[in-house]
Amino acid sequence: MRVPTLRDVAELAGVHPATASRALNAATRNLVNGDTAARVARAAAKLGYTPNPIARSLKTSRSGSVGVVIPDLTNPLFPPIVRGIDDVLSAGGFNALIVNTDNDSAREDLQVASLRARQVEGLIIGTARLDDPLLHRLVRDACPVVLINRRVDTPSLPSVTGDDATGVDLALRHLAGLGHRRIAHLAGPQWTSTGQVRLRAYRQGVAELGLVDSPDLVVVCEQWTESEGAAGLTRLLARDTGCTAVLAGNDLVALGCYDVMRERNIACPETLSIVGFNDMPIVDKLRPSLTTVHVPHYQVGAEAARLLLERIADAAAPVKSVLLPLRLVVRDSTAAPPPVG
Amino acid sequence: MRVPTLRDVAELAGVHPATASRALNAATRNLVNGDTAARVARAAAKLGYTPNPIARSLKTSRSGSVGVVIPDLTNPLFPPIVRGIDDVLSAGGFNALIVNTDNDSAREDLQVASLRARQVEGLIIGTARLDDPLLHRLVRDACPVVLINRRVDTPSLPSVTGDDATGVDLALRHLAGLGHRRIAHLAGPQWTSTGQVRLRAYRQGVAELGLVDSPDLVVVCEQWTESEGAAGLTRLLARDTGCTAVLAGNDLVALGCYDVMRERNIACPETLSIVGFNDMPIVDKLRPSLTTVHVPHYQVGAEAARLLLERIADAAAPVKSVLLPLRLVVRDSTAAPPPVG
Repeated sequence: MRVPTLRDVAELAGVHPATASRALNAATRNLVNGDTAARVARAAAKLGYTPNPIARSLKTSRSGSVGVVIPDLTNPLFPPIVRGIDDVLSAGGFNALIVNTDNDSAREDLQVASLRARQVEGLIIGTARLDDPLLHRLVRDACPVVLINRRVDTPSLPSVTGDDATGVDLALRHLAGLGHRRIAHLAGPQWTSTGQVRLRAYRQGVAELGLVDSPDLVVVCEQWTESEGAAGLTRLLARDTGCTAVLAGNDLVALGCYDVMRERNIACPETLSIVGFNDMPIVDKLRPSLTTVHVPHYQVGAEAARLLLERIADAAAPVKSVLLPLRLVVRDSTAAPPPVG
Repeated sequence: MRVPTLRDVAELAGVHPATASRALNAATRNLVNGDTAARVARAAAKLGYTPNPIARSLKTSRSGSVGVVIPDLTNPLFPPIVRGIDDVLSAGGFNALIVNTDNDSAREDLQVASLRARQVEGLIIGTARLDDPLLHRLVRDACPVVLINRRVDTPSLPSVTGDDATGVDLALRHLAGLGHRRIAHLAGPQWTSTGQVRLRAYRQGVAELGLVDSPDLVVVCEQWTESEGAAGLTRLLARDTGCTAVLAGNDLVALGCYDVMRERNIACPETLSIVGFNDMPIVDKLRPSLTTVHVPHYQVGAEAARLLLERIADAAAPVKSVLLPLRLVVRDSTAAPPPVG
């Protein structure tokens, strides 16, 4: 069977081949009337037309694709981010190719190399480690990049994150207001900016609110996972600190705490209050429902896609760091501490 | 700055350029000693070497990438599937480029066209609709494809799914064993094989177990979503069928039921039992924890990746349909029906 050509698509759509070409190329689609572009897309789909990527890449060096690098898709906070990215990109005539690195930096190097070999026009990266050689290389190669969730100090790259410090402060004030004085922190990995920023904000809040300040109240988890959260709470309990509340580094860490509390018959919130971070899907339906800091993940993704399209259009666009506002969602996992004695 | 070449990589790794080339090409990596391949990968990463994709595509027409087409990444069952796919592909020297279609067939056409334009060597598709023109085109073009979760009758394509009929049967027998006689089914979309197979199995189980058989007990949801589940249960309750248990088409539909029961103060399981389907992450921690049919999602992904690699290596490999065994996980959302009167 003959492979359909651009000319066939143009004929079926009733437009000039140059118009069809523009409509089918993500980088130029906005030059074409919306109805016409849709008619051409339908014609191309009907005929099963695939543009010749080699010819097109040679001519335009544009692919219409953006790479999205996710550290762990099984963390439920990422799918809503991806949806935000997808919606903005597709409105802009681009599409997202997503890769999952499983928090493995060797895998990340290969995945990013593969995306660049597929000639994506830019990258949205959710895997940033503090001092990440990959990011230095991308900056050197002038590859358009926007970071999500995690930031780096140098090189200077645009980023979209929640205002984590304020989020931690809201959580601590809520717990202090309930009467808690010994509040522990199961901190996230310190090789991520989120882990560092939240721990720093915890220390500052403890000082400002005059809470009990002890190194025993801090346990650092090596990964943002349920199992690390469970191990972290186990270590904390072994220290016998008398803490009555735990600020978990994120919701998965909080879920790990739920597992340990269930195993050991520790009543939540009566004996121990827990606060999470992210408000990922379904935590409102947990037993007990989780008090947590709400991060607007869809907006994180949408905003990151907007920043990236800006940089693809203009490599000299200013390097912005967008901090999105967070709010505390109070549910059933927090209450006043148990009476003393 | 000079762009690093294959020769630079080979030199740094201390191997012949031909060896470096083989090691860096996913299709030939298995021809190289594992330690050597790792050394070459490290050297390439250190130098920031990116193979010239155009030259390589022209020479070999191999990309080392596989496209994964997901209908809705925010459905928590997909991330574990993606992890299974990723693990098998990366062991085979391939990587996965994931796209999210949001259950929109126009978007799906564009996403698949983009993947093919990026020269992926095959596709794993989780979006199959019964009678899907896209699938016909892929078969026509001899593109290696494996379907996950959903199947189609024709064209004949390899697939990996759970054994849904057995899963429904297990759920119905559990409910009947508790004493339920009027069991409703909130069926999934009938344009998906999963929706059809589960509804058919429900009808068969009702007949075999001698349960109350009434069209009023079946509501079809148009999408596999929480909001459709909520709307479905609302419609069912308006019919006043006297049902004491609901078999939800999947876990998201069951979550929608939770919302309606909470709004209306319907006690679960005392007044109404609910069974889900999938055992997606976190449903064990819901209030009440969800009784559901466990689908081994990681294995679905891993098996699909294996089948696809088989087909990429040998286009004439037999077209297998793999059904993975399911089991019922009994938790707190099911109990005996309330006493009559």
